[in-house]
Amino acid sequence: MKFSSKVQRCGLSPIRKFHPYAEAAKAAGKKVYHLNIGQPDIATPAACFQAVREFAQPVLEYAPSPGIPSLIQAVQGYYDRLGTHLEEGDILITTGGSEALQMVLNCILDEGDEVIVPEPFYPNYSTFVYAAGGEIRPLPTTAEEGYFYADRKRIEALINERTRAILITNPGNPTGVVLTPEQSRMIAEVARDHGLFLIGDEVYREFVYGGEDLASIITYEDMPENIVVIDSVSKRFSACGARIGALISRNKELMNHALKFCQARLSVATLDQVAAAALYTVPADYFAATREEYKRRRDTVVSKLAEIPGVLCKCPEGAFYLMAKLPVDNADDFQMFLLREFDDNGETVMYAPGEPFYGTPGRGVDEIRIAYVINEADLSRAIELLGKGIAAYNAKKK
Amino acid sequence: MKFSSKVQRCGLSPIRKFHPYAEAAKAAGKKVYHLNIGQPDIATPAACFQAVREFAQPVLEYAPSPGIPSLIQAVQGYYDRLGTHLEEGDILITTGGSEALQMVLNCILDEGDEVIVPEPFYPNYSTFVYAAGGEIRPLPTTAEEGYFYADRKRIEALINERTRAILITNPGNPTGVVLTPEQSRMIAEVARDHGLFLIGDEVYREFVYGGEDLASIITYEDMPENIVVIDSVSKRFSACGARIGALISRNKELMNHALKFCQARLSVATLDQVAAAALYTVPADYFAATREEYKRRRDTVVSKLAEIPGVLCKCPEGAFYLMAKLPVDNADDFQMFLLREFDDNGETVMYAPGEPFYGTPGRGVDEIRIAYVINEADLSRAIELLGKGIAAYNAKKK
Repeated sequence: MKFSSKVQRCGLSPIRKFHPYAEAAKAAGKKVYHLNIGQPDIATPAACFQAVREFAQPVLEYAPSPGIPSLIQAVQGYYDRLGTHLEEGDILITTGGSEALQMVLNCILDEGDEVIVPEPFYPNYSTFVYAAGGEIRPLPTTAEEGYFYADRKRIEALINERTRAILITNPGNPTGVVLTPEQSRMIAEVARDHGLFLIGDEVYREFVYGGEDLASIITYEDMPENIVVIDSVSKRFSACGARIGALISRNKELMNHALKFCQARLSVATLDQVAAAALYTVPADYFAATREEYKRRRDTVVSKLAEIPGVLCKCPEGAFYLMAKLPVDNADDFQMFLLREFDDNGETVMYAPGEPFYGTPGRGVDEIRIAYVINEADLSRAIELLGKGIAAYNAKKK
Repeated sequence: MKFSSKVQRCGLSPIRKFHPYAEAAKAAGKKVYHLNIGQPDIATPAACFQAVREFAQPVLEYAPSPGIPSLIQAVQGYYDRLGTHLEEGDILITTGGSEALQMVLNCILDEGDEVIVPEPFYPNYSTFVYAAGGEIRPLPTTAEEGYFYADRKRIEALINERTRAILITNPGNPTGVVLTPEQSRMIAEVARDHGLFLIGDEVYREFVYGGEDLASIITYEDMPENIVVIDSVSKRFSACGARIGALISRNKELMNHALKFCQARLSVATLDQVAAAALYTVPADYFAATREEYKRRRDTVVSKLAEIPGVLCKCPEGAFYLMAKLPVDNADDFQMFLLREFDDNGETVMYAPGEPFYGTPGRGVDEIRIAYVINEADLSRAIELLGKGIAAYNAKKK
């Protein structure tokens, strides 16, 4: 049987690659600290479950294809508080941020069209871009520069006649990089000046630790044609399992095209939309408490990493991830070593190896992504294990 | 801004096209009977809502990408009762049957590859096939033959080197056609003999009215490479808003490719999977009662249609739709007439015009699709209105 060339370019999740070895390590009695998965441990606000319990309609019907009115209004209210007003038609509710991104890519990419993406980037972007027939043009960064990418010249050097969009994750996954308002505006102007879409994956918007105001490229009301935002309740409200996202843009033609895909898949899950609408009623102190918790975790990870000789990690400003460059030859081999050969008092650690976050072949082999979504004590111990593991691995290699 | 050629080929939902005119008619005080929408009015089993109310985890986490184990096991149990055993890996839980179909098409279609689909067909198939870069090769049928399509010669005549799959909806939407076991097996053998996938959209499986056993092409265990089933809880349990479907196949390579897409979109909504698993526990008499209700409705619609001079409609055997050929010049114009010019005691009727269900240009202009998902009394009155409307429309045309 023949399979499509696009699916053959896609790969299984690199983040899941070591799952069988982790299971084997656990079966052998080892405790494994997980720094590899971005599933927050923060409790989902009770309003979510309460709304679902109160659902009283006898038939679980299709919702309207663009989303239920109460959720669209809740999203409007949220952006009003951010200082920018969206019309109802500027918002399409989607099955997670993932579906929003798939939709916009299918709306704008033909075979061979290019999307500029700063690397390292979220690996699933590759699957979505390939499935739409497109190509990722990576915008290189370095650990030494703290994964800085907001450079007009470097971005413009990558634009050609096949370029259709710039896709940024801000705050960044996997880097934690947060753009300054000036950097963000500059990238939007590059997009505008070259007739490109700027797609901002802003699902970590609340997770900034330097006292910054919440930022969004959708506030650039002077460039309605170019700006597209991918949004989600997953991280904002620790409700990843709701699969409620949104595609947001003032580009009417784009939204009209995207609506075709919304109608074709009929609707987004009704109960989850009701739950998501309720989530938008949580008071602002919910975010403040969550932010403080993540900030403490970040500080713990960064300070503990600094104690390990040879590790390079500039303190990230947002999201709940960071990239670190390790003094090892290969992060994949090192992960295998940690799971199969290493332990300290019966404990070891998992991270996401860095290479799959890069589009440029050969890059990221000595880097890792850490998700700091577990409690501080466990994080501290996990980084300690990482340090001991590096020493043991390099001793063995000599 | 440039948009992709594929999205430009796709259209907005033809079923929604008359929505603004219906709203205007209602605003003017007219009562509109809806025969145009496939949203069942049957109550969703209480087990669905009960399971959701009992969900007690503090964090609404991502579910595993292939689906939660309890739901996969529930689907396995359901197919065991149908007489065929599926391995866990033969089932991927999807966001509705729609996502399952999108995934399989993306796995098998490159630019210009073809899928044979009997016409009239569910219009969203076009969007899914176009988005995957493919083409629909319609297999023509006629109202006079009751939309019969199970003819080996006619099918084989459409197969060429770009053909990748045959896609059938059985029981049929919009036609209500149900294949006999021999016809179904014959089509599977055509697929096997030509190295094609046979994709069976079987979401209406329970809705057969001739006393037939429940049937599925997945029972053809001797052709594991060719058979793919699109499944869903939407119609089976009147739970359209749950958006829980499944992609089912014993083709290991296909399922491994599809898993890439499952992983890229992370997971299907957690609460809805829990609810769907509970739905599979409803006793068999639930289906018997629902089936009897729909059968009575079908009989009402068919007998009332038979009273209208010039209407052609062979009694359909399944699903809850039928196609009828009307003695009017154009079903679109007639719909506009019904909404804007016609009423009988302040009431009128809506259907889905037939043309968008066809892939061959110019076909279906005098046909309509009727969904019999409202109560018998309303159905009876709606068809009466249709008859009076036809008389009034044709009188006006003279």
